Amino acid sequence: MHAYRSHTCAALTAANVGETVRLSGWVHRVRDHGGVLFIDLRDHYGITQVIADGDSPVFAELEKVRSEWCIRIDGEVLARDASLVNPNLPTGEVEVFIRDLEVLGRAGELPLMVFGDQEYPEETRLRYRYLDLRREAMQRNMTLRSDVVASMRRRMWGQGFREYQTPIITASSPEGARDFLVPSRLHPGRFYALPQAPQQFKQLIMVSGFDKYFQIAPCFRDEDPRADRSPTDFYQLDLEMSFVTQQDVFDTIAPVLAGVFEEFGGGRKVDAPQDWPQIAYADAAKWYGTDKPDLRNPIRMQDCSEHFRGSGFAIFAKLLEQEGTEIRAIPAPTGGSRKFCDRMNAFAQKEGLPGMGYIFWRDGADGMEAAGPLAKNIGPERTEAIRQQLGLGVGDAAFFLGGKPKSFEKVAGKARDVIGAELGLTDTDRFAFAWIVDFPIYERDEETGEIDFEHNPFSMPQGGMEALNGDPMAVRGYQYDLACNGYELVSGAIRNHKPEIMLKAFELAGYGADEVKARFGALFNAFHYGAPPHGGCAAGIDRIVMLLADTANIREVIMFPMNQRAEDLMMAAPSDPTSDQLMELGLRVLPRD
Amino acid sequence: MHAYRSHTCAALTAANVGETVRLSGWVHRVRDHGGVLFIDLRDHYGITQVIADGDSPVFAELEKVRSEWCIRIDGEVLARDASLVNPNLPTGEVEVFIRDLEVLGRAGELPLMVFGDQEYPEETRLRYRYLDLRREAMQRNMTLRSDVVASMRRRMWGQGFREYQTPIITASSPEGARDFLVPSRLHPGRFYALPQAPQQFKQLIMVSGFDKYFQIAPCFRDEDPRADRSPTDFYQLDLEMSFVTQQDVFDTIAPVLAGVFEEFGGGRKVDAPQDWPQIAYADAAKWYGTDKPDLRNPIRMQDCSEHFRGSGFAIFAKLLEQEGTEIRAIPAPTGGSRKFCDRMNAFAQKEGLPGMGYIFWRDGADGMEAAGPLAKNIGPERTEAIRQQLGLGVGDAAFFLGGKPKSFEKVAGKARDVIGAELGLTDTDRFAFAWIVDFPIYERDEETGEIDFEHNPFSMPQGGMEALNGDPMAVRGYQYDLACNGYELVSGAIRNHKPEIMLKAFELAGYGADEVKARFGALFNAFHYGAPPHGGCAAGIDRIVMLLADTANIREVIMFPMNQRAEDLMMAAPSDPTSDQLMELGLRVLPRD
Repeated sequence: MHAYRSHTCAALTAANVGETVRLSGWVHRVRDHGGVLFIDLRDHYGITQVIADGDSPVFAELEKVRSEWCIRIDGEVLARDASLVNPNLPTGEVEVFIRDLEVLGRAGELPLMVFGDQEYPEETRLRYRYLDLRREAMQRNMTLRSDVVASMRRRMWGQGFREYQTPIITASSPEGARDFLVPSRLHPGRFYALPQAPQQFKQLIMVSGFDKYFQIAPCFRDEDPRADRSPTDFYQLDLEMSFVTQQDVFDTIAPVLAGVFEEFGGGRKVDAPQDWPQIAYADAAKWYGTDKPDLRNPIRMQDCSEHFRGSGFAIFAKLLEQEGTEIRAIPAPTGGSRKFCDRMNAFAQKEGLPGMGYIFWRDGADGMEAAGPLAKNIGPERTEAIRQQLGLGVGDAAFFLGGKPKSFEKVAGKARDVIGAELGLTDTDRFAFAWIVDFPIYERDEETGEIDFEHNPFSMPQGGMEALNGDPMAVRGYQYDLACNGYELVSGAIRNHKPEIMLKAFELAGYGADEVKARFGALFNAFHYGAPPHGGCAAGIDRIVMLLADTANIREVIMFPMNQRAEDLMMAAPSDPTSDQLMELGLRVLPRD
Repeated sequence: MHAYRSHTCAALTAANVGETVRLSGWVHRVRDHGGVLFIDLRDHYGITQVIADGDSPVFAELEKVRSEWCIRIDGEVLARDASLVNPNLPTGEVEVFIRDLEVLGRAGELPLMVFGDQEYPEETRLRYRYLDLRREAMQRNMTLRSDVVASMRRRMWGQGFREYQTPIITASSPEGARDFLVPSRLHPGRFYALPQAPQQFKQLIMVSGFDKYFQIAPCFRDEDPRADRSPTDFYQLDLEMSFVTQQDVFDTIAPVLAGVFEEFGGGRKVDAPQDWPQIAYADAAKWYGTDKPDLRNPIRMQDCSEHFRGSGFAIFAKLLEQEGTEIRAIPAPTGGSRKFCDRMNAFAQKEGLPGMGYIFWRDGADGMEAAGPLAKNIGPERTEAIRQQLGLGVGDAAFFLGGKPKSFEKVAGKARDVIGAELGLTDTDRFAFAWIVDFPIYERDEETGEIDFEHNPFSMPQGGMEALNGDPMAVRGYQYDLACNGYELVSGAIRNHKPEIMLKAFELAGYGADEVKARFGALFNAFHYGAPPHGGCAAGIDRIVMLLADTANIREVIMFPMNQRAEDLMMAAPSDPTSDQLMELGLRVLPRD
């Protein structure tokens, strides 16, 4: 017989009754029923109940066994009494009577119980991650993650892509976030950097003629931690294609993601790729107050400025006299109660706005009646025009925000989320996707008036060189995001592969040719040797797994995560270097002040 | 029609004749046959001949096109004359008459030609890697690598393994080589390290109850560069299993590798896993002079000491009077000529030995005759005994090396390689595998007499605690390598998962408990909470692809490799940090002396 097991702890059924078997696993739970020991023996695959009484030659030893000891047992498979069959367990028809025992690994007192649902501080969970990971939910999350990544790979190969690995120890690539640096020993005083993303490499792979690239790529950004972001490294499904338009990229990645969400979504509805709307960035802001709208929520905001211009509601009327201002309505079907409207108004105030004006419609003495201070101020005619524009009726409400859109859109977007959730309008059993397109290439700093890239300097401007010769602020890029349930899942672009357009694009943002050559030299040089048009995108794997696992904490879907101070409590990282190491690297640590 | 292509450059056949098509690709070669232009248009998939003459509306523009320009053409598919069909090209039956042209990416003067077989200095190839990679051999090597990795993954999943990702920014793990360090910004003066291998993490994954782990894992070692080693990062097929014996690990990885070599070996013979011998480390040294023997070579060395003890060959006879010495024979079937023997003797001298004595057998006046100075010195009886022991005959030779095995074994191993190759005994059309087992746990420093780990401190000693209480130098580990054609492809072990045995093993090597806790704290702590017996191995992917691609230079199988000074010439890495970066990290660069 094998040294450790003839079966896993999920394998035995009634068909094995009478066999002598060998099992190895962890003591999940021990119950002592007066001279009879019941042990739930657990491995990665499942649980088998193993038992012993005084007839077992190892009974005395077994009595010493404690939770989470790793043991090997030999025994005989017995059928359980019909009344004792556990239908929730694949092995629930049998139990194993223990005849031999080997303790493979003792356990000390446990800082964290594997059995049961007790919650522990994150500190404890991360320090004893090897115990935390034994818990059922964590086993499930980690296998989910592994299965999702494998499914992505299979689907990408199915679309004719090959996976190519790009360097991890490489050059600093100023792409927005901070680089992690790696000091060179062979070149003391000089540093490598870890890639924030394989952006330049994947573009170089296209220039190298590989046509279709993907990679489950580790990315490194030295960012301040937050709940849905790893403070050090994270993984992307990164892809790039040559000779493609924006629509080709959509048609490639959409079925991959839809397939993954179908496969692992646990039956939640997944919008079909052909139904994913393409929403212009500007429209997303107008309609949803964000470039990652949650389309499970049917609410779409509308411009109601005309109804307030010159109206009796002086605050809005005055506001509208300033250039660039607007009154935006958030329709709230079924939200037509003063209590709800006041609560939403309070929400806006908590978010830093003066408040949200509102109107709601109810049954009055003479039929439908519009209530709320706003309605009184602007009068019945305008109120009715608003109601008709928003398509609302009795029992519904609408909220109003005014000013320059940038000043209220973010709060409006949040209010839309809260309204959708509180009124039960948001379908929580669904994954709703939307492409956000036509991102502006540039943004203007409100204070300095200077122009800088809005997002990514590598995107091809729509209209090419001609567009760049016009008003920079009007230039849109072939640049896109995919939003799902309020998260940005994918980001990408058709790249700017023409050196002269690249130079011009950077010039508009205030970067000279020398700087382009210094910062993006490899790419810029490569574009002088027959660069193909190309584009691609990257999908955040941690976030996709979070959505599928229904958790808002990225550490629930990473095997050995850092804590929020970017420390690994289990491995004790970061740590002090030795003086030999510093010497070899030609570095000195400055005294902390 | 699609903006860039209706077909790839490998897709058109006689079935498409008469169609109007659109192709995009690179100008591989242009020939001007007096008013008719022939262009080989190349993409990742293949080549299509496209042509134009004065009848084409874009003829004048086409005449400006040069090698490696990226272009898009529209045209009509024509059948080639039977006499002009190119049977070597999938598209060889057709050509496309160009009616429209778009230049997608111009190319300047080329530092490196894609067409043809011209060789270029590595410096040039790495600096212009995007051109180098367009060459047919590099396209082939990169797709091979991608396909090999995908095949490994598929085979590992087929064996019930899941892939789990382990941290890349983590703790320093003193495992032999130097760590790459990463300074922490949030904890100035403290450093993370990049993992030399996921060794500790994969063991912790076993302690966490995951049973079967694998990963195509990036590994980082700050080592001095050499031809078959990347100076920064490299990839391993890393695996670990719980509740297994050494043989289980062999039975898992062997079919994966055999399958990969079958699939991508280009018809070369692959030894079947059940025929892979298991050779004790000590025997490998005796028989082959190395722990990574090339078994395509049938030569096995033998101990011939007894024939020389007290013989007339004074050098060997005297040598044998010292303790621990031996005379080792390298049989060389078909090597029986003075010319060959002298050349091999010269080889040994070049390698730093006094030389190799030899005997060879030839047809003499009275039948078989032994020639060479050795034979004369020891006389016919001993010579004949040697011949019989080695199983040699007329036309064969044998070489002899003497002394302490450590002093000559390395050269003997090399001589065996050279003899096998020169005599054509080594079957170059084959992949020959051998497990090397029973590695010693410890080695003794010849000078200081101190004992240290021979290899890897994580291996379980055969015989467990009991063995450690005996002679340390006699302790063998459950530790193994897989050799293939003279390379180490795989290395692994059954791990020492018992904290008390771990402490004892380290104690013998001179490390106190405090040091174990400090250096391997996570693992040591984890072993106190119910650790399962576990083991695994890691296979070097770069090396496997090198063998399959039949190259001895690792840079031929890596997309964007460093040069041998650990520099990326294309990306200009490493580079000087900015003073802001250093400030944030709390570091100062010491002046170079």
